[in-house]
Amino acid sequence: MSNSIGKLFKLTTFGESHGIAIGGVIDGCPAGLKLDFDAIQNELNRRKPGQSAIVTQRKEPDTVEFLSGLFEGKTTGTSIGFIIKNTNQKSKDYSDIKNTFRPSHADYTYTKKYGIRDYRGGGRSSARETANWIVAGAIAKQLLNKIKINAFTSSVGDISLQKPYQELDFSKTESNAVRCPDKDLAERMIESIQKIKKQGDTIGGTITCVAQHVPIGFGEPIFDKLHARLGQAMLTINAVKGFEYGSGFEGTILKGSEHNDAFNTDGSTKTNLSGGIQGGISNGMDIYFKVAFKPVATLLQKYNTIDADGNALTVQGKGRHDPCVVPRAVPIVEALTAMVLADFYLLDKTRK
Amino acid sequence: MSNSIGKLFKLTTFGESHGIAIGGVIDGCPAGLKLDFDAIQNELNRRKPGQSAIVTQRKEPDTVEFLSGLFEGKTTGTSIGFIIKNTNQKSKDYSDIKNTFRPSHADYTYTKKYGIRDYRGGGRSSARETANWIVAGAIAKQLLNKIKINAFTSSVGDISLQKPYQELDFSKTESNAVRCPDKDLAERMIESIQKIKKQGDTIGGTITCVAQHVPIGFGEPIFDKLHARLGQAMLTINAVKGFEYGSGFEGTILKGSEHNDAFNTDGSTKTNLSGGIQGGISNGMDIYFKVAFKPVATLLQKYNTIDADGNALTVQGKGRHDPCVVPRAVPIVEALTAMVLADFYLLDKTRK
Amino acid sequence: MSNSIGKLFKLTTFGESHGIAIGGVIDGCPAGLKLDFDAIQNELNRRKPGQSAIVTQRKEPDTVEFLSGLFEGKTTGTSIGFIIKNTNQKSKDYSDIKNTFRPSHADYTYTKKYGIRDYRGGGRSSARETANWIVAGAIAKQLLNKIKINAFTSSVGDISLQKPYQELDFSKTESNAVRCPDKDLAERMIESIQKIKKQGDTIGGTITCVAQHVPIGFGEPIFDKLHARLGQAMLTINAVKGFEYGSGFEGTILKGSEHNDAFNTDGSTKTNLSGGIQGGISNGMDIYFKVAFKPVATLLQKYNTIDADGNALTVQGKGRHDPCVVPRAVPIVEALTAMVLADFYLLDKTRK
Amino acid sequence: MSNSIGKLFKLTTFGESHGIAIGGVIDGCPAGLKLDFDAIQNELNRRKPGQSAIVTQRKEPDTVEFLSGLFEGKTTGTSIGFIIKNTNQKSKDYSDIKNTFRPSHADYTYTKKYGIRDYRGGGRSSARETANWIVAGAIAKQLLNKIKINAFTSSVGDISLQKPYQELDFSKTESNAVRCPDKDLAERMIESIQKIKKQGDTIGGTITCVAQHVPIGFGEPIFDKLHARLGQAMLTINAVKGFEYGSGFEGTILKGSEHNDAFNTDGSTKTNLSGGIQGGISNGMDIYFKVAFKPVATLLQKYNTIDADGNALTVQGKGRHDPCVVPRAVPIVEALTAMVLADFYLLDKTRK
Repeated sequence: MSNSIGKLFKLTTFGESHGIAIGGVIDGCPAGLKLDFDAIQNELNRRKPGQSAIVTQRKEPDTVEFLSGLFEGKTTGTSIGFIIKNTNQKSKDYSDIKNTFRPSHADYTYTKKYGIRDYRGGGRSSARETANWIVAGAIAKQLLNKIKINAFTSSVGDISLQKPYQELDFSKTESNAVRCPDKDLAERMIESIQKIKKQGDTIGGTITCVAQHVPIGFGEPIFDKLHARLGQAMLTINAVKGFEYGSGFEGTILKGSEHNDAFNTDGSTKTNLSGGIQGGISNGMDIYFKVAFKPVATLLQKYNTIDADGNALTVQGKGRHDPCVVPRAVPIVEALTAMVLADFYLLDKTRK
Repeated sequence: MSNSIGKLFKLTTFGESHGIAIGGVIDGCPAGLKLDFDAIQNELNRRKPGQSAIVTQRKEPDTVEFLSGLFEGKTTGTSIGFIIKNTNQKSKDYSDIKNTFRPSHADYTYTKKYGIRDYRGGGRSSARETANWIVAGAIAKQLLNKIKINAFTSSVGDISLQKPYQELDFSKTESNAVRCPDKDLAERMIESIQKIKKQGDTIGGTITCVAQHVPIGFGEPIFDKLHARLGQAMLTINAVKGFEYGSGFEGTILKGSEHNDAFNTDGSTKTNLSGGIQGGISNGMDIYFKVAFKPVATLLQKYNTIDADGNALTVQGKGRHDPCVVPRAVPIVEALTAMVLADFYLLDKTRK
Repeated sequence: MSNSIGKLFKLTTFGESHGIAIGGVIDGCPAGLKLDFDAIQNELNRRKPGQSAIVTQRKEPDTVEFLSGLFEGKTTGTSIGFIIKNTNQKSKDYSDIKNTFRPSHADYTYTKKYGIRDYRGGGRSSARETANWIVAGAIAKQLLNKIKINAFTSSVGDISLQKPYQELDFSKTESNAVRCPDKDLAERMIESIQKIKKQGDTIGGTITCVAQHVPIGFGEPIFDKLHARLGQAMLTINAVKGFEYGSGFEGTILKGSEHNDAFNTDGSTKTNLSGGIQGGISNGMDIYFKVAFKPVATLLQKYNTIDADGNALTVQGKGRHDPCVVPRAVPIVEALTAMVLADFYLLDKTRK
Repeated sequence: MSNSIGKLFKLTTFGESHGIAIGGVIDGCPAGLKLDFDAIQNELNRRKPGQSAIVTQRKEPDTVEFLSGLFEGKTTGTSIGFIIKNTNQKSKDYSDIKNTFRPSHADYTYTKKYGIRDYRGGGRSSARETANWIVAGAIAKQLLNKIKINAFTSSVGDISLQKPYQELDFSKTESNAVRCPDKDLAERMIESIQKIKKQGDTIGGTITCVAQHVPIGFGEPIFDKLHARLGQAMLTINAVKGFEYGSGFEGTILKGSEHNDAFNTDGSTKTNLSGGIQGGISNGMDIYFKVAFKPVATLLQKYNTIDADGNALTVQGKGRHDPCVVPRAVPIVEALTAMVLADFYLLDKTRK
């Protein structure tokens, strides 16, 4: 059903924000892969709350515990079960939010679809789920060790990185809290988020991701084209509203004679408006795409809403929330990219 | 594998542009649905080549033949097999294109991935495949008869419809060759395409799609969120480079206080920047999204390329091709939307 | 949905006994496989009606037409579409059988499940469907060309082959109409079937299948153990009531000290009660299993039944039917075995 | 991949016998089901080691911990994660078994397939995994609360229950250690097992399962026929060598005129050799089938085997193992039956 992603490298997940633990099962990881556990925990640390002044101040250690599928530090080819305990749930009085639907949240749709909702928090719709993806993505990265995946914040609100990614130094992405490799722009983004935060408001942004050294041949037409599966994965991330790859929406105003990528004699192309994918299959050039994130719906302001009985009411937003989801989403974008590529890596083994 | 789309309403396809026939199998359509065969053929006619002056002048009747799954005009619950014969393949001399890779086509990637390629045309990567989708989509539309799905051309190159869709009269979409319901803009788009065509060039554009009267509850978190599956489907269409729903990329520059959709007391919302989907589940409001199409890669100009041995050469593009893929893609966008919604309609039946 | 079999080597089928054609789509067959089309047709001929005096005298040529996925005689890695036209449907008066349920047939259950039934014959429940499997199985055999798959009739009614398969000469299987490689027993089986046929009655039997030279490592625990998937495939065949592999039901009366297969120093085993599979994974020894077929339900006798309104009535069975399904099922068992093994061959490529 | 079972009611599992925990994710259970947790634990207790003198004396409490998917005792429609901790692993010296393959075990095939093996026990191939199935099956039973599923031991070695199941009182199954509802035969079976146990040997047997009050219409032709999916599930259980339903292998010696189930005017049948399934779809009659278990491979005797380098050696079997797996497998057969039926219950909702 719908809590699984991938065909051969497959992650199945569970867990709510206020339950005992979240976790998952990674099925299909080949045997004999020696895991670097520090690297996995490091990816979790990139995502975890409380890591800087511009993200939620909630404290959760987000420590992954592997329960199966490993022996003497290596994968055995059996399914890898893992959990991440929820340590930050507090027993508190939910009576005020129990019957209230927050605007632009999943509260309303979950209640209507399932007839029941864990009202103690976002439940299954919480972005806490993405910690599971980080674990599987970190393993996928290790499986694909020659492929380099770099995501970074390319805009916060209307502060937007205009340079082509080729002019960026990806090693600088982690050097600032907003995860933009351009230092000056990063500072402006951080200031902007801090200002928004003081207002109890939130702001959107975009993440760009570049996957380099992807071999030719990843992607499975017709319905599992590489960019279609990347798009589906990105659109799965909480708050994502759009996906484009290569020339994207801007490519729609070009003529074919401007847009076509002319070949070099070695099969590489002089330009790369195709974004490294032609006919749904990687062509050996850099794969790059952009993901749009809306502003977080939870505000620390007063807002109007309704309760389960349809009564209008005014609520004062409170709690610890991200003023901008983008910085913490950078490792999530990378993790899903790695999972999708790992799946196609395995699928491609079977095609010739 | 990868020639199937959908979980419960599932289409599996086959066929190349220059083979004997294309076709597919629709699995999971409920029994007892009385089919309107004229409506199905009408959708095929909306997609077929040669329908107007601004599309490819290739002539193919695109007549669907149903082979199974129907009895006395109704679905029986068994799989529906169908074929559409290819009537327009000519036996001609392919020696000039046999070993040549067209820039920004799938020629190169298919050859590298599979080690073999049907060089007589686009083969499996041809948009001819989309006729199969039209058939399944037309049946899905009939299954979802209360849901209204309207796509239309929202831009051609830099000529872009600025009105909100609520101000459009969808009944006008089919009244012009470019399928834009705004008459004046349609004329400008048509002129633009004709000019591009004379240059032997091509141009991109966008399609907007609106699905109305979708019940609350369609969509299956976590990995089958409604918009994620719509995005995957749209990104499957040839030449698509991007997908956004609701506020999309423009939503990234907004604050949460501007972006949140306030509730009415009946659960509907005053605004709809969410695009009818919250937490991956339909909320009863209109679902709308936009799809970006790059310019068609095939030019009727001279261009430089390489052959299979890596030799540079110059080729004169010829044949009958679309100067702009967007007008014929409008029914394709609708068909895939219908298939995705039909799948979620069936899935939702099992959730409570 | 449920008209597909296989994960990586996947067949999706359609078609009713009295429709225009049956057919299917083979998805996931690797590219570059040169097909022997005579071998495929030969397998269809082994299954087709009218081939001998002890099978149904219905005449159908069962000619497969490939529509896609092949180029210059080789697979291209794209989906392979094919149809087999139904040439033997007669327009006749069905009013007598239209509302009548034949005992131990699928008439009743299809009608109740779907609310509609193609009453002109078995419809989708007809064994005509198995011709589709033959096509995919014949291609799978060619993909697995080093693996030898031999099925044969091991019993008809109580006439049962007692010899271990190692004492049989599989090259004799096709030398007689009943497909039992033991000539003397074959004659007794044929006589028995002819006698049953004269009575307007039918008889059951068993088929044994042996797959040799299967590499070590086919099978995917936990839920896709090799024997579990073989069992599912065999139980899919019309009229099958049971499946056992290796020591099977007789193994239940043995002690562990009698049943265990002791190793030779090269990893092969001295005995093979395991049937070539341990822990759900092939161990390099011969894989063998037995499939039980009930007697065909359609009798050319008078029988009592009910109509759709629950009225009791007596019907005189007529038409052309198999008195024993087993001889024609031998190639079907082989075809499904080949498909299952082809799937595991591809899956195993991804595990290390 | 292959650690999942089911299409709509889906269980994905992980865990090795000597790891930290086993567990799983149940995806697709409808929302709003109030769970009886005592009933779940009770099913686990029926399977657990150490419950009687004729099963392994290993002590494990087998307590399930639910981590998600539940709120206030009810399912929420989200995925249900659970773990069962392994409490009985001892740190001991494995040097003697580390490189030794036990005959008729999965040691050899896992090592060859994956190139690595957790040598501390059966690892993933251990029957410990079946505790996960019990959890999901117990929930499936509650979902299907009107359907009654009763399995029982029908033979141990050559001691076989000859009565038709209609003459048995299923309420007696749990009244003895061997789980045979016939008291006298149960005593003989227990004595036999005790004798075998003293020899350090093991013995096989069969389990019969009866599912009553299954609605008409469960089962999805062509490839998900109800009995085919039941068969696959049963063949997944450790040590199973065969599956038959209805008349099974004995039905092969009958004539059609003897085997056909004549209708009553209400659509029920006078006999039930069909085993409650016709054309792969339940017909409303009792569903019954039999499962064959070989003797457990692990002996507490001396035996000859080889090590990983192909050296012959003699090993003294030791440890705590079941002399006969059948009594503890009774709840496992029921659990898998419940899971398969739950899946078809949900699938059938989508067919009309």
